[in-house]
Amino acid sequence: MNHLHDVALEKAYRLLNHGPVTLVTFEHEGAGNVMAASWVMPLDFDPPKLALVLDRNTYSRGLLEGSGTFVINLPGRQQAELTLAVGSCSGQAQDKFAQFGIAAQRAKVIQAPIVPGCLAYLECRVIEEPGVQARYDLFVAEVLAAYADERAFSKGRWHFPDDELRTLHYSAGGTFYPTGNPFTVTMPAGVDD
Amino acid sequence: MNHLHDVALEKAYRLLNHGPVTLVTFEHEGAGNVMAASWVMPLDFDPPKLALVLDRNTYSRGLLEGSGTFVINLPGRQQAELTLAVGSCSGQAQDKFAQFGIAAQRAKVIQAPIVPGCLAYLECRVIEEPGVQARYDLFVAEVLAAYADERAFSKGRWHFPDDELRTLHYSAGGTFYPTGNPFTVTMPAGVDD
Repeated sequence: MNHLHDVALEKAYRLLNHGPVTLVTFEHEGAGNVMAASWVMPLDFDPPKLALVLDRNTYSRGLLEGSGTFVINLPGRQQAELTLAVGSCSGQAQDKFAQFGIAAQRAKVIQAPIVPGCLAYLECRVIEEPGVQARYDLFVAEVLAAYADERAFSKGRWHFPDDELRTLHYSAGGTFYPTGNPFTVTMPAGVDD
Repeated sequence: MNHLHDVALEKAYRLLNHGPVTLVTFEHEGAGNVMAASWVMPLDFDPPKLALVLDRNTYSRGLLEGSGTFVINLPGRQQAELTLAVGSCSGQAQDKFAQFGIAAQRAKVIQAPIVPGCLAYLECRVIEEPGVQARYDLFVAEVLAAYADERAFSKGRWHFPDDELRTLHYSAGGTFYPTGNPFTVTMPAGVDD
């Protein structure tokens, strides 16, 4: 069953605001790849933009520079092993979708694969910033479309109803942290909200 | 008791890799401020760099452009209310340290206040990138010093021994998510780590 529903573009930043680990998918001239990335953050609200660090020594970099597009996929618990795996090898010598048995689906508005079963997706187009791309491997992109699993994200908010439907945060050495249980605090007196 | 210990600079990215919410502190010509920021990410390992989004319509922006330095403070559970509060008002009209009773301490290598009781600190100096600063409010900085509460971060790893000593992730509307309990996955067979 398909639980994906569209996320309003002005709320797309909320998919990334809490800093989850991501899978990034690419395609250029028929060649695709998937990598893991934690160094992704929102950059603007509306139209939504984000920033992504992508090392110059990766196979994905060539695909990104060729197509100018990519998809940010947000893995849940069931994709943790996959996230570690695709982050630990290159797509130069082998097709990671085949290697790891990923039955890739198609993105909606750009030409790229997506990893099925993730909690949310942001389809992006690079805004050329050659200076910081060259100096820091830093890419700026506009979010063209966003959609999420309605069980985990709806009405502009994350819910995380159970442990399978939580986003993940990555530290190092194969250790992940699921996003914890929310708590809400109130504004101290005297602050003009 | 002071639990802070130095973090090796080449491990400083691990303080931020999992995407926690931060408090950012500034000082210029005797005027200080503190704000909340989720849009912060690592940018390089060694020497460590990070990227920060800082809106042009904030009081902090002038302090940052004046001093060229800032500190990233990582709040724990006990600073959640403070994080919401300082993120919801401007330091233009009032001294937020006084308003919220923050007994600011001093940073180690730059001229800036820090918020006591946080789980980690990264002292930073801006690397001038006027193009992306102007177009996206995006700042690149080098991390000059990093230190952390040894109960929560030691030997280059986060531990989160109890709920008070967890970093936080911010969504919206006063809702925070503590970093969850870690799990470690192993590499699938056939992947060259």
